[in-house]
Amino acid sequence: MRVTVTGGAGFIGSNVVDRLLGAGHEVVALDNLSTGHRPFLNEAVKHPAFRFEEVDLPEAGDDVGKLVRGSDAIVHLAANADVRFGWDDPDRDLRQNVVATHRMLEAARREGVPRFVFSSTGSVYGEAAVIPTPEDCPFPVQTSLYGASKLAAEGLIQAYAEGAGLRTTIFRFVSVLGARYTHGHVIDFVRALRRNPRVLRILGDGTQRKSYLDVHDCVDAIAMALDDDRLNGTFNLGVDDSCLITESARWICERLGVDPAFEFTGGDRGWIGDNPYIHLDPRRMQALGWQPAYSIRSSVERTVDWLVSEPWVLDLPDPRRHA
Amino acid sequence: MRVTVTGGAGFIGSNVVDRLLGAGHEVVALDNLSTGHRPFLNEAVKHPAFRFEEVDLPEAGDDVGKLVRGSDAIVHLAANADVRFGWDDPDRDLRQNVVATHRMLEAARREGVPRFVFSSTGSVYGEAAVIPTPEDCPFPVQTSLYGASKLAAEGLIQAYAEGAGLRTTIFRFVSVLGARYTHGHVIDFVRALRRNPRVLRILGDGTQRKSYLDVHDCVDAIAMALDDDRLNGTFNLGVDDSCLITESARWICERLGVDPAFEFTGGDRGWIGDNPYIHLDPRRMQALGWQPAYSIRSSVERTVDWLVSEPWVLDLPDPRRHA
Repeated sequence: MRVTVTGGAGFIGSNVVDRLLGAGHEVVALDNLSTGHRPFLNEAVKHPAFRFEEVDLPEAGDDVGKLVRGSDAIVHLAANADVRFGWDDPDRDLRQNVVATHRMLEAARREGVPRFVFSSTGSVYGEAAVIPTPEDCPFPVQTSLYGASKLAAEGLIQAYAEGAGLRTTIFRFVSVLGARYTHGHVIDFVRALRRNPRVLRILGDGTQRKSYLDVHDCVDAIAMALDDDRLNGTFNLGVDDSCLITESARWICERLGVDPAFEFTGGDRGWIGDNPYIHLDPRRMQALGWQPAYSIRSSVERTVDWLVSEPWVLDLPDPRRHA
Repeated sequence: MRVTVTGGAGFIGSNVVDRLLGAGHEVVALDNLSTGHRPFLNEAVKHPAFRFEEVDLPEAGDDVGKLVRGSDAIVHLAANADVRFGWDDPDRDLRQNVVATHRMLEAARREGVPRFVFSSTGSVYGEAAVIPTPEDCPFPVQTSLYGASKLAAEGLIQAYAEGAGLRTTIFRFVSVLGARYTHGHVIDFVRALRRNPRVLRILGDGTQRKSYLDVHDCVDAIAMALDDDRLNGTFNLGVDDSCLITESARWICERLGVDPAFEFTGGDRGWIGDNPYIHLDPRRMQALGWQPAYSIRSSVERTVDWLVSEPWVLDLPDPRRHA
């Protein structure tokens, strides 16, 4: 089939591109290269069934329709994917996550692209009333612009499923780790330890519990959604586990062979709107046969290994300076 | 206090304006007059504490900040408020409900307006898994662009409450009836019976159950939200009851003194994305002392009486032709 992958030069997107090309699909990758990177497509561009288009979706207007014309599916991953810095530019989540998703849905509807797969987030659960959090937990309250923007996109996708007959899969991801990962606590810690291996500053008081998924397992689920009609609807994607931020910090330090003192900035969360305890219930996906291959610890370690093998990524500008 | 009321020339908005002026507040009404009507402000404009500004919020940019400057509260009611015709113009709900709400929130944050009251809808519950539906029912699936756009606005408001410290009240309304009502089944039926009092065509198969609230009771709750800090968060607004669409049709016919045959278009719902059973659980608001004064039947009858007393409203263009 022909698949349009938005955010195709990004962390998860480029992994999806490689997987789909490997499975014999034709792939059109769209990306505005704001947080995606051309080197992530170094393998893909050698492939005759691959095409890349640099485009900013909220600004693209009707061009989006032309770009998806003839596709059998859209995997819509393009987003501002950083939950922490929403208040630096409150318009960004609205444009990149809500308006862009609406553009893609309209393009799918008008061009008759039948299948739409979307990367949402466990952040839509806010501070979940039930942990591990199932997809049908009590109606949540949003705590971040990022979560709110992804919730908004989810709602639009569901409305298009009902009103325009799209077959849609919404995945609510925990944080994803692995090859081509470029933002989040692992890269922050690896960078900080490169500057000073004797002290590691950790946001919050160290009691936050989070869950992580390896990009390999994430891509498995996305590829499955393209083939398997049982994946209509909304599904959590995560391992059935969580870890303390201090555990993750220790695994990173061990992998790098350093032994810093931990310093805590204090407070029970890392930033405004941070959710101090994330653990999604993955049973809905597991019941369909999906199973993550990597534990949280091995995902963290694989990420450290990849960052060490690709030191140019550590020299990328900090996302706070991207806006 | 000084209150900015968006959608201030609309059905609910103009009722809020009159109530707040009567209670001694200063009121700035904003409206793009797409579905609002200047005659609804005939009393307000005589009042020295009232000001009206014609403005389209999604297009207004930084002007919104100037308009809310000095306000103590924003009552944000401006919206595309018709759930049925979303697919005639899928951009409209996004612009008028999501982008406009974001503009107002940013204006509130930048200008330091501390209190934000919002009109959401029971449509965010989609086809609710629990009836009567409480605010913390299972995480819903959206079935209409209208519901999705209001859910999106809710999420943004909650994120601004968390991140920008706004005190916010989100009301999830059932359909509101009463003086200055200009769209929905009561006006549709009154219009149809004026054309032909012998036959009344009803969308669906007549088994849909809906709930209605009189605008008087709705305005009570909004006024309460401005005064009472216990109203932080999300609250259903409706009577603790529902009625069959055929019951409502009979009440309307009796009030008009006609006795038509009912014809049904068939199917278990009135339109794509229609929710065939709406009954919100109002206990969270009732526990704070709010209680509706009017039953569904008396709200329907008061609406018929008002439409009969203001026949110009029946001659307004049908909302399908508004876009």
